[in-house]
Amino acid sequence: MLVTPVKVHIQYGPKPEHLAALRERLHPEIQLTVGDGPPRPADFEILVHGFPSRADVAASPKLRALIVPWAGVPIETLDLMRTFPGIPVHSLHYNVGPTAEMAIALLLAAAKMIVPFDRNFRRHRWASPFQDTPGGVALEGKTALILGYGRVGRRVASTCRTLGMHVMATRQHPEPAPPDEVYAPEALPSLLPNAHALILCAPHTPRTDGLIGEKELALLPPDTVLVNVARGAIVQEDALYRALKARRLFAAGLDVWYRYPTEAERELGVAAAPSSFPFQDLDNVVMSPHRAGWSNETEIARSVHLAALLNAAARGQPMPHRIDTHSGY
Amino acid sequence: MLVTPVKVHIQYGPKPEHLAALRERLHPEIQLTVGDGPPRPADFEILVHGFPSRADVAASPKLRALIVPWAGVPIETLDLMRTFPGIPVHSLHYNVGPTAEMAIALLLAAAKMIVPFDRNFRRHRWASPFQDTPGGVALEGKTALILGYGRVGRRVASTCRTLGMHVMATRQHPEPAPPDEVYAPEALPSLLPNAHALILCAPHTPRTDGLIGEKELALLPPDTVLVNVARGAIVQEDALYRALKARRLFAAGLDVWYRYPTEAERELGVAAAPSSFPFQDLDNVVMSPHRAGWSNETEIARSVHLAALLNAAARGQPMPHRIDTHSGY
Repeated sequence: MLVTPVKVHIQYGPKPEHLAALRERLHPEIQLTVGDGPPRPADFEILVHGFPSRADVAASPKLRALIVPWAGVPIETLDLMRTFPGIPVHSLHYNVGPTAEMAIALLLAAAKMIVPFDRNFRRHRWASPFQDTPGGVALEGKTALILGYGRVGRRVASTCRTLGMHVMATRQHPEPAPPDEVYAPEALPSLLPNAHALILCAPHTPRTDGLIGEKELALLPPDTVLVNVARGAIVQEDALYRALKARRLFAAGLDVWYRYPTEAERELGVAAAPSSFPFQDLDNVVMSPHRAGWSNETEIARSVHLAALLNAAARGQPMPHRIDTHSGY
Repeated sequence: MLVTPVKVHIQYGPKPEHLAALRERLHPEIQLTVGDGPPRPADFEILVHGFPSRADVAASPKLRALIVPWAGVPIETLDLMRTFPGIPVHSLHYNVGPTAEMAIALLLAAAKMIVPFDRNFRRHRWASPFQDTPGGVALEGKTALILGYGRVGRRVASTCRTLGMHVMATRQHPEPAPPDEVYAPEALPSLLPNAHALILCAPHTPRTDGLIGEKELALLPPDTVLVNVARGAIVQEDALYRALKARRLFAAGLDVWYRYPTEAERELGVAAAPSSFPFQDLDNVVMSPHRAGWSNETEIARSVHLAALLNAAARGQPMPHRIDTHSGY
């Protein structure tokens, strides 16, 4: 196998142990630089960065690929990279398992009202904090509608089935195969009235931006649970807040949000509201700070997947998981 | 079909709408009385009561069956009914789905630290409240050990498998059939060192009372999550508290407890501690007030299952779900 030297610049902040896990998996011909900005001289051929600026991408005249070290590519990055049509964009599908686990965790926590019951019971109150819905909603016999039927969506579907749920899904390019009931996104208005759980696993693209708004939420039956482990912007912020506050939605479990801390806020560890609406005042939302992928296991998996892409490049093979910057996935 | 009149006394407190759901399903020859104590004259043939006193059972000379309107029969009731060997005891398996849902809800809430993350994030803190375990433990690729492999245990197992877990189980009378890996309870010491999730779905019987104590918990690997949806007393109270406090267990999700409110406490709605240990001070426990079966759906299911037993009796057929008062299930 012919291996050629490849210069790679990593511009996300892996911890030393996860960088070590990456290095020990890389072919020795791969030369790594790591840092907050491009190295000088900037002669890297592959840039690993989720949110590069135009200057980052333009820095090295030898750049021939961008790897976004996440599953989803930000719309801003897609917009930028369409102006560099000669530089392919790749992403990493390292966190299918953890994201599916988080989707099911949030679905059940929201349906069973795990948080308010826990809070109440720590004060030794045995009764339900809710008169109308003594113990939450049952999922058995209900229908789950999964938007986005890729690796995560299919994993979530198989777990929903073992909970006794009927599963329907939508996908940009539906390829239904029994027992999967997969529809094109256009079918959404006819599917929503039957969805007791609406689970978002779709990529954030121009087509899915704001896909679920007031009209779509109004089509859902009462007592529906909404779960978002994809990207906040797929569900319209104001419509979601209002539907939860009015209890037109039974509950929501949210791992993805509308405003993220700036790098400065993150470094200082200051409070940063994830929305301009006070979701924190709602009893029927489970709030999670975009952490499906936070675990030692996941960071190791990220290193393993990244190493696989870089080693393929060193061997002169095509890197997997290329993104179409127009469709966004 | 020959139907004979049957007098049934119900001594648990269904709400009017659930009693109506029962009545509309009963054969008209069945005569119901409902109340806190035996009717006078006490001539009922079937008593529906989970926790009868000796006087309740002895009240009617015509009594020919006791139905406990729950899935599990209290040890006190088993002890009592062994002194009435001519009166068979039955129970209701109406809540398999909700109990399995609660087991998975508690497993994931504990593993993903849903409660402390939600509390922190409502104050707009994005960072993990825990340094060592940034986002909880991943379940994919780990092993679940399920104690008790009846209807609930098997349902939980199939969901664990779709989460990418390997499943082992123990059962009093193991009947292994692929892909089920079912062992006799004696295998427990050799199974515990491989269990990243220990899920209790067994009946509470003299054999399972205090089954999991300090020695058993010490055999578990670090970062194990314990879930109990069976009965509190299967896990020794002090050993569980100490293992959680010392973080020898990563976390626990508990729907069943060590002390329950008295009827007076329940009526007055006063606080009643579920344990003599301060579980409420622990961040790594999800506390749920024995509510797996609390939902309108479940109460309707209880009425449906109870009606099936009573209608069988009216038709002179054997009632299903008879309990062996010696084994306890």
